This record gives sequence, structure tokens and C-alpha cells, in this order.
Amino acid sequence: MGNSLLLLAPIGSVLALLFAAYLAYTVMKQSEGTEVMAKIAAAVRQGANAYLKRQYTGVAMFFAVMVVILTILAFQGYLTMFVPFAFLTGGFFSGLSGFIGMKIATSANARTANAARTSLNSGLRVAFSSGAVMGLVVVGLGLLDLSIWYYFLNWFFRALPDAQKIQNITSAMLTFGMGASSMALFARVGGGIFTKAADVGADLVGKVEAGIPEDDPRNPAVIADNVGDNVGDVAGMGADLYESYVGSIVSTSALAVAAGLGIDGVTVPMTMAAIGVLASIIGTFFVRSGEQAEQKVLLKALRRGTYVSGILIAVISYFLITAVLGPEKIGVYFAVLSGLLAGILIGFFTEYYTSDTYKPTQRLSSTSLTGPATIIIGGMSLGMLSTAIPVVIVGAAVLASFYLAGGAASFQMGLYGVGISAVGMLSTLGITLATDAYGPVADNAGGIAEMSHLDPIVRKRTDALDSLGNTTAATGKGFAIGSAALTALALIAAYKEEIELIVKKENLNFVFDLSIMNPTVLVGLFIGGMLPFLFAALTMEAVGRAAQSIVVEVRRQFREIKGLMEGKAQADYATCVDICTKGAQKEMILPALLAIIVPIAVGLVLGVNGVAGMLAGATVSGFVLAIMMANSGGAWDNAKKYIEAGNHGGKGSDSHKAAVVGDTVGDPFKDTSGPSINILIKLLSMVSIVFGSLILHNSLF
Amino acid sequence: MGNSLLLLAPIGSVLALLFAAYLAYTVMKQSEGTEVMAKIAAAVRQGANAYLKRQYTGVAMFFAVMVVILTILAFQGYLTMFVPFAFLTGGFFSGLSGFIGMKIATSANARTANAARTSLNSGLRVAFSSGAVMGLVVVGLGLLDLSIWYYFLNWFFRALPDAQKIQNITSAMLTFGMGASSMALFARVGGGIFTKAADVGADLVGKVEAGIPEDDPRNPAVIADNVGDNVGDVAGMGADLYESYVGSIVSTSALAVAAGLGIDGVTVPMTMAAIGVLASIIGTFFVRSGEQAEQKVLLKALRRGTYVSGILIAVISYFLITAVLGPEKIGVYFAVLSGLLAGILIGFFTEYYTSDTYKPTQRLSSTSLTGPATIIIGGMSLGMLSTAIPVVIVGAAVLASFYLAGGAASFQMGLYGVGISAVGMLSTLGITLATDAYGPVADNAGGIAEMSHLDPIVRKRTDALDSLGNTTAATGKGFAIGSAALTALALIAAYKEEIELIVKKENLNFVFDLSIMNPTVLVGLFIGGMLPFLFAALTMEAVGRAAQSIVVEVRRQFREIKGLMEGKAQADYATCVDICTKGAQKEMILPALLAIIVPIAVGLVLGVNGVAGMLAGATVSGFVLAIMMANSGGAWDNAKKYIEAGNHGGKGSDSHKAAVVGDTVGDPFKDTSGPSINILIKLLSMVSIVFGSLILHNSLF
Repeated sequence: MGNSLLLLAPIGSVLALLFAAYLAYTVMKQSEGTEVMAKIAAAVRQGANAYLKRQYTGVAMFFAVMVVILTILAFQGYLTMFVPFAFLTGGFFSGLSGFIGMKIATSANARTANAARTSLNSGLRVAFSSGAVMGLVVVGLGLLDLSIWYYFLNWFFRALPDAQKIQNITSAMLTFGMGASSMALFARVGGGIFTKAADVGADLVGKVEAGIPEDDPRNPAVIADNVGDNVGDVAGMGADLYESYVGSIVSTSALAVAAGLGIDGVTVPMTMAAIGVLASIIGTFFVRSGEQAEQKVLLKALRRGTYVSGILIAVISYFLITAVLGPEKIGVYFAVLSGLLAGILIGFFTEYYTSDTYKPTQRLSSTSLTGPATIIIGGMSLGMLSTAIPVVIVGAAVLASFYLAGGAASFQMGLYGVGISAVGMLSTLGITLATDAYGPVADNAGGIAEMSHLDPIVRKRTDALDSLGNTTAATGKGFAIGSAALTALALIAAYKEEIELIVKKENLNFVFDLSIMNPTVLVGLFIGGMLPFLFAALTMEAVGRAAQSIVVEVRRQFREIKGLMEGKAQADYATCVDICTKGAQKEMILPALLAIIVPIAVGLVLGVNGVAGMLAGATVSGFVLAIMMANSGGAWDNAKKYIEAGNHGGKGSDSHKAAVVGDTVGDPFKDTSGPSINILIKLLSMVSIVFGSLILHNSLF
Repeated sequence: MGNSLLLLAPIGSVLALLFAAYLAYTVMKQSEGTEVMAKIAAAVRQGANAYLKRQYTGVAMFFAVMVVILTILAFQGYLTMFVPFAFLTGGFFSGLSGFIGMKIATSANARTANAARTSLNSGLRVAFSSGAVMGLVVVGLGLLDLSIWYYFLNWFFRALPDAQKIQNITSAMLTFGMGASSMALFARVGGGIFTKAADVGADLVGKVEAGIPEDDPRNPAVIADNVGDNVGDVAGMGADLYESYVGSIVSTSALAVAAGLGIDGVTVPMTMAAIGVLASIIGTFFVRSGEQAEQKVLLKALRRGTYVSGILIAVISYFLITAVLGPEKIGVYFAVLSGLLAGILIGFFTEYYTSDTYKPTQRLSSTSLTGPATIIIGGMSLGMLSTAIPVVIVGAAVLASFYLAGGAASFQMGLYGVGISAVGMLSTLGITLATDAYGPVADNAGGIAEMSHLDPIVRKRTDALDSLGNTTAATGKGFAIGSAALTALALIAAYKEEIELIVKKENLNFVFDLSIMNPTVLVGLFIGGMLPFLFAALTMEAVGRAAQSIVVEVRRQFREIKGLMEGKAQADYATCVDICTKGAQKEMILPALLAIIVPIAVGLVLGVNGVAGMLAGATVSGFVLAIMMANSGGAWDNAKKYIEAGNHGGKGSDSHKAAVVGDTVGDPFKDTSGPSINILIKLLSMVSIVFGSLILHNSLF
């Protein structure tokens, strides 16, 4: 039964891509509005394209070097010959997801602003459609890549007996995650540095020193700031979730084989993903409301889309799992449910801690009354406090999925359950990403409305969309972190299985000792636990340096371009975009290399036991740190907005100034370092899997 | 041989206490200076006494409840009857260490200021003597408690065969750590909240709002601030290190028995501690220099004391270990060396990252030029970055001590090696603590000099002492964190041994599965990894709330007491002290209960495997977070001082204001939350050991 149902995967993939194309067509049909609006949109588009072009050039060189290294290792017998190719396709499709998402986002911004001239709901529909394109492209391309490889490998290994064939297939597919992860890391780190350097730089000189409002066309960094929304929040987010999506499916497939489920066990995650596509498409139709709807109603509409998709998946996967694995494996279905539920709960609590409609952020905003120091302390402790509940949720999801899937009787079935819960959580990705990725489009639309001097009501509407986007972005971030943690756990389990496969194949004399009392595991835990901190430090410092050069440039333009402040001369936007681009390119190299070199170096010293310890340590501390940084940053942002809405003295008061400090600190927290950690923890596992054989044969301990 | 050498422990204890008494006598012989000085010192002393009295009353109630619980558990057979008593003595001696340390510190402050009227060196000698009293009392009382219990238990179990006797002795002694840990937690958390609430509150209104300098007698919170230096930095630090000291010795003793070393294995850590006392006393004689010495020379003098002690220990312990364990166990000696070396290296790198004589802090101070946001981001990333090297050092120390002690052949010997390396690191405690604890005395002396309007040269000298104290405090903090991590690891190993003893004794059907792939261990890792964050959040929020009430009170006094600002009326210092006292008492309850209840709750759900995972997770993430918080805080503090020394615009400039924000954020980081984490990770292990049997019999998983 498994084999024929597997066809759902390529079908789902094509369906997602076709529907995305249709949505893109409806977006492109809209008008970009006035000539000024089109001109600004073109400038943003141009900047984003220039950035991506340069980024892809740089990343291509990295990929070229990696392919050479992987090919050499393959010739030495440490890897199969598929790995270099799998690495390339993973990277290519991950990059393509980000590219298409950014293309549509930079085309939809002016169109959203223009639609918002009619009504709030019209604006929402354009922005949401563009977000949905992104969401569906990510899942569509993910499934496409998986399907192509699956059917190719199935043909390639056709001579092998079934059990061995499926094992070879899943082992090969597992390695292509590394390409996707590497690409995602560059996109997240580079984009994150770009966007926050532009944002912080523009704010520090424009808002604080020159006293001009946000998105003022006189600010030379304003276009770079808008470009940043696209390359960071759209392209980076897309590549990140592409990678979680693919990673959870391939690791669960590998665990299926270890659990003795064979092809049926592979069919479940692949077709669950296809069901998710269908559910997401149906969900998008529920995101609509009356023309004059209020913000609250719109939020409900967005949520309705996600909930409908979730319920559809919950219902259909019941039939799928009992049909494919048999009714006695109903526990696997409960593992799916626990993943779905955990995703929703983490999203809710992220919102609770970061939205100004709840107590924590309201209380935080009141700490601004005693100055910047107290709001910083308050935001840090809010972020730290907010890690407790997600940890308990993930812990409960792990235990539930492990034991419900039958982990007490068969350890491997339990691990499969953990993997499938990650797949369950990510199956709603199409629609979740849609409600998330529309935010930056709305943000951009607001900038365009401001810069082209549209009627203030338009800016008010785009602000409402933007603020709605902040809420869904918070939920989205929680979802991204939670799914990254579950995926990373599945990858660690897959790592162990892959090493044991090598040991068996090559008849080596090695047995895992993963006890936390094993000193190499313990030292691995320590090093892994430290890595997210190191990574966060490097990315924050990178933002600081890049922002510094923007500050210098903006100050120079204010000084040297006569008539700029009076609005008589135009700022030189392109130079700021260029500085951000160069800065991001230069600064992303060190963190990225670190993520690839450290697991290999640790492995060569501590051995595969130590690597497993490192992976567990990084996942644990990375999960906690990422939540802390995301929630501190989100809460500072919204505490500032809460004050701007007229509380604690409102805009321009001392408490507002203090809140701006909090927001500025939060920028790299929530949009650069925090999200990069998600990728770090997955990439570490991916690298460890690919280099597993090398380490197994050459380590010191 | 072991048995007779063990007599060194009580001898060393008495020696330490006698020498401490002698030093205290030399301090008390000095004059307190002018009448005004004596009056201020009396006020500080009175405030500190009032605080400690209230704290001990509160803690006594907690101890009473715990003794009842422990007695009930003992009656039910989950514990031996010694535990309630051991718990009490541990708490008593830990509290006594802090009490005596604080007594001498509050007597030495005015005397230091007065001596500083003669010369810098005279001031140093008084302050350092007072620090040495503290250091020697901590090690003296620690050894006293250990000796009394050892000899009592040795008599009590006299009927048992040797092997069984020593096992019973070490098991019983292990549990008394929990009393010391609980006391230390209250002292650290309560004292930390007190000191930072007073400091932050005094600064926010006094420095920022009213524009009066630090330590100005017109500030109503100024006495509370000085009291805080004593109850937080002295009493808290003393209780913390008392507990590491005792914890490392008892856990190593338990591991010795598991490694089959018997009484000889217990003799080594106990006598190493006695050697440390001797070495520390000798070291103190090297801390002197010419009357007119410069600051740099003084720092060298302080370091010389520590290095002489370290070298003495390195030499003597070679003879000790080869004599007691035999020359074939020379590897244990190398484990001692690796601990000693790791302690020195961590101290050095802490200084590197936080002292303004090195690049990192200098660079941090330049980020103040672009405002408070950039210095906050810079300090956070500095702290995060600074975790990498200590993690590598501890990792290397663990691997070295494990394998050098023979871990490859005998796993238990390896664990004993890790324990003994912690003992090695802590053997210099007498002198390390002396160079650390004199800092707050110098800080207080500065305050007294300011408030009693002494010649500015005196304040300049006490400032030099204070700044020297900041450097040694940074080293001391690194040392405290490093030793806490190693001690915690030894405690986790001891935990496992104790549980296995119970299993063996009661013939239970249980085998540890500590693999990181075991879901209960994994979930334990997650929960443990989150706990230090939660703990830091709670303590930071507590500081915020307590500081807030000080702000309100100081504002009230400025408003209501006529003539206060003109210096014609006196501020009501006592009320501020009282508010801090009450605040600290109230706020310390929740974090303390958390540290005790969580490991029991986790254990009852996840079982003893999950507890082990939790302990490892908490140690890893706690170590990293504690270093980050300590170093961020230290660097902000010194970046501010660097600007005050005339860089980047100097005192009063915008960059100075930005640096003050950094310093204020850093205050609870480095003096409340960061240090409390050290105790948290040890207390979690202690609680887990004491409640091990209960959990083993009653857990869900």
C-alpha cells in the first residue's frame, strides 16, 4: 500500500506549486499604484535583487568548495557518491524557496499599499496571498526535491532486495539536508545581519540624532531598511523552515527504516506532508472577511485558516496512518497529534509573552518609567522566564510521542514517534508560513505609503496590518523554534542510526556509549551547550559592526548632501544598500564556517560519542536561548508600540526613549541571533551525519 | 597510612581558625578613625546585623520545616537518621562562615579607610587581613564540620568491617552538603537581592535623578548600599564557596569508595584541604610591599600570594598522593594539577574579558559612543563570547583528570579523578577567597571616606584598592563558577553511585540508562537546561521589584525631608535598610523553594534517569549562563570606569550616561543572578542525592 500512496508526495508538490503560481498571478494583476509608489517599490526590488545576487555568488563559491571536499571524501570511501549531488540540490531548492518568496514579497509591497487605499481587508488579501505563495513554494519545492530523489534512488537501487533498498534510499536522502541547512544558514545569518544593520543604523542616526520619523524618505538608509525586511524576514525565514520541513521528513524516514517499518514507515511522513499541502490550500480560503472588518476580526480570520488546516490534517492523518501502518499502530497517530498540539501551544505562549494585549509585555512597558536600564533588565528576565513553558511543552511532546508510538516495547518505534511528531508539527507549514511571511510585506507597504505621501488613512491601515503581522510573526517564531528543536532531536536519533549502520556494514568494533557519565559525552554536552551562545555573540557583533558603518555613511550624507534635510535633494540610497550587502556578506562567513568546522573538529577529538553529546547540548541550550532572545526582542518591540499607543507618556516621552533602547537591543536578538540558532542546531546534526564515517575512523578518543 | 594522616584535617582546621583569630585581632587593634567614621561604620554594622538576624530567623523556619520532612522520610526508611542532623550542621557552619566573614568585614571598613590615610599599602593590609579572616574561616569551619562528622561516624560504625564502614561514613557525609547548599542559596540570593536593590535604587534616584555623586551622605539609600556590599558580596560569597569546598570533598570521598580506594581515597581529599590551609597561610605572608607602592605592584603582591600557595600545594600533594595511594596512582596527582591549572586559567580569562586593561572591555566602552543600546548589545555579546574558553578549559580538565586518573581502565577511578581535580582547584580557597573578599571592604572604606569628608587622597587610595578589588573579584568569580561546575559534576557522579548503592542494598530491579537517547534523560536535559534561565529571571525580577520600592522611598525622603538636599537635615537611612531587608527576605523564598521542589518534582515524574539528565543539563547551561552574566556585568562595570578615567568624553558625557545604563543592567547580572546559579547547580544535585531513595521508589517513569 505504501508505494502507491507515495505518489501523493509529487502530486502534492505540483499542486502546491500550481496554486502558488495562481496566487502569484492574482497578486501581480493588482496595480502598484502611483508612479512614486512604483518607483520606490522598484528601488526596494532592485536592492533586494542586488543583495541576493551577491549572496548567491558568495554561497556558490562555498558550495563549490564543499562539493570538492565531499567528492574527495566520497572517493576515499567515507561517503557515497550521491552526497555531493544531494548537497547541491538541497542547497539549490532551499535557495530557490527564499528567492521566489522574496520575489513575490518585493512585488506585493506596493500593491498591498495600493490595495490598502481601498480598505484594510483588500490590503490584507494582497499581503496574505503573497505570504501564501511563499508558504506553498517552500512546501512545494521541499516535496519536489524529496520526490525526485526518492524515485531516482528507487530506480537506482532497483536490483536490491526491498529492505536494503529502502535503507540505502533513506541514508542517501538524509545527507541532502546538509545542503539545505548550509544555504539556510547563509540566508538567515546574512539576511539577519543586513536587515538589522540597516534598521539599527537608520534608527540611530535618523530617529535619535536627526529626529526624523521612521520611513522618512530623507533618511538615506530607508530603502536599505525596506530591502532588509525582505532579505531577512522573508528569504531567511523561508530557507530556515524549508530546512526544518525537509529535515524532519528525511530523519523520520531514516528512523522508520531503523524501526523496521520499511517503505510504509517512509510513506507516512511523505504523504503527511502532501496532506498538509492540501489542508493549507483549503485553509487559505478561510482567510477572508467583510470589506470593513476590524483588526480583531482579521486576526480571527488568519487564525481560522490555520485551525482549519490543523483540523483537516488531524482528521485525514488518522485514516492515512491506520491504513498504511495498520490500526495497531494507532499510537503513531497520537504522536502526530502531540506534535500538532505542541506547535499550537508554543505559538500561543509565545504570543502571550510578547503581545501587548497580555500582562507580561504591559508590565514590561511600565519598567520604562525608570529608564532604559530597568526595561533592559525587565526584558531579559521576561525572555528568560518565557523559556519555562515551551520547555515543558516540548518535553511533554517528546515523552508522549515516544511512548505513545510504542517506545516502551521498541526503542526504535519510540524514536520514530518523536520524528513523526516533528512532521506533524510541520505539516501545517504551508499556512503557518503564509500568516507569518505576509508581515514583512505589510511592513514594506507601510514604508511605501509613508515615502509616497499617501493619505494618512493608508498608513494607518498598513500599520494595522503590520501590527497584526507582529502577532502572527511571534507565533511563527515560536513555531520555527519548536519545530527546529523536534527536528534536531529526530536528526540526532538518525545520526546514531546512521553511525550504527556504518559500524554494521564495515563490521567495526564500536558500540555507542551515550551515557552522560561518559566523559567525552559530558564534554560534548558542555561544548554544545556553549555553541549557541558563541554563535549569538558572533552574529550580534556582526550586526553591531555593520550598523556602525551605516551610521557613518548616513551621517556623511546628512553632512555632505546639501538640501537633504529640507527635502530638496535626494539621498543616495544605493550606497547604504551596498554597504549593508557587503557587510552582511563579509560577516556571515565566520559564523557559517564555525557551524561546519566545529562539529568536525569536536568529532575528530571526542569521537562520535562526543559528537552526540555536543548535538544534545546544542539543541537544549539553543532551544532555550533562541526562545529567550526571540521573546525578549518581541516583548521590547511591542512594549515600545504599547507606549506609542499613548501609554506611560506616549511617543516622545522619556519612557518612550527608554523603550526605543529596548527595541534596538531586541532587534538583533529576535531577527538575527535568535533565528540563526534554529538553523545552527539542525546544521550541526547534518554536518555530523555527513562526516560521521570520517569521524568514526579518525577520532582521537 | 590513610587513617593517621587523616588527623591532618582537624589539625588544619584548628590552624586555620587560630590564624584567622590572630588576623582578626590585628585588624581590631587598628583605630576606626574619626568619630564620624566610627559612627558611619556603626550604622553599616547595625544594618548588616539587622539583616542577618532577620535572614537567619527566616532561614531557621525553613530549616525547621525541612528537618521535620527529612525526619519523616527517615522514619519511612528513605533516609538514614543522620540526614536531619547532617543537614542542620551543614547549614549551621555555612551560615556561621558568612556571619563571621561579615562581622570582620563590617569592622574592617572604617579601619581600612583610616589606614588609607597613612598609605595605600596600609589600607591594603587591613583590608586584605579582613579578607584572609573570611577565607580561613570558610576553610577552617568546612574542615571542622567534616572532621567532626568523620570521627563521629567512624566511632558510630566501629562494629562494621572496614569497607562497609567507610561506605556508610561517606554516604552519610554526602547528605550534609544539602544543608550547606540551602543556607548558601538563601545567603547568595537574599544578599544578592539586598545589595543590588540598594545599589540600583540609590543610583537611579541619587545619581540619575538628583544628580548627586555616589556615596553622598544626602542619599537616603547610601547606608543600605554599603550594608549590601557586606551581606551580598561577603556573606553570600562565603557561604557559596564553603559549599563548593565541602561538596567537592564529600563527593570525592564517596567516589573514592566506589572506586575501591577505601579509606585511602578519602584521606587524599581531606588532607589536600589541610595542605591548602597551610599553603594559604604561608601565602598571606607574601602579600606585602613597600609603603608607597603603586597599584600595579600591589596587584602583583596579591597574585604572588596566590601563586605561592598554588605551587606549595602542587609540590606537597605530590608526596601526599604517592605516599597514600602509592606511586602507581601518580595519575591522581596529575588530576589535581589539572584542576589547579584550570582554576588559574579560568581566572585569567575572566580577567581578560572584564578588565579595562585588555581589549574586550576597552572596545566595549567605545560602543557607548552610539548610545545605551549599542553598549548593551556589545556587553551581551562580550559575555556570550567569553563563555567559549572556560568551557574548553573545563572540558579539557574533565578529560585530563578522568583519563590521567586511570578512567580508561577503571571508570570509577576516572570519576574519582574528576572529583579530585575539583578538590585541587578548591585547595587554594583560603587565599583565593582572601584576595576576593577584601574588595567589598575596600568599597565600603571608600564610602566611609566620602561620607566623612576625608582628604580626597584617601578616597583616591580606597578607589585604587576598590579597582584592584574589582580585578581580583573577577578572578574570584571565574574561580567560583569553575569550581562549582567541577563540584557539580563530582556530585552527579556521586548521585549515581548513591542510587546504585541503594539498588544493591535493597536488591531492587533497576539499572541506570543514562543515554542521551533515553527520552526521560533527554527531557531531563531540557528541563535542567532551562532552570538556570528561570532562576536568573526570578532573581532579576526580584531585584527590580525591591529596587523599585527603594526608588519610591528615596524620592519620598527627598520630597518630604526639608533641607536634606542642602545637607542641613539627615536622611532616614534605617528605613531604606529595612525596606531592602524585607524585600530580600520576601523575594528569596520563591527561587529557593524552586531549587528544592523542582528536582523532587522532576524526579517523581521522570525517575532517577531523568534527574541525572536534569542535573547534567543544569550544570552545562548554568555554567555557560553564569559566566556570561558575570563577565557581561564585570565588563560593563569596568567600561564605565574606563570612561570615568577620562576616555570617550569622560564623566558626565553622553557616552558615560550610556555606560551607566550598561553598569546598572550588569549589577543584577554579576552580583545576584550569576552567582546564584553556582549554588543552584550544586543544590540541585544535593537535593537529588538526599531524595534519591524516595524518587527511586515512587517515580512515574
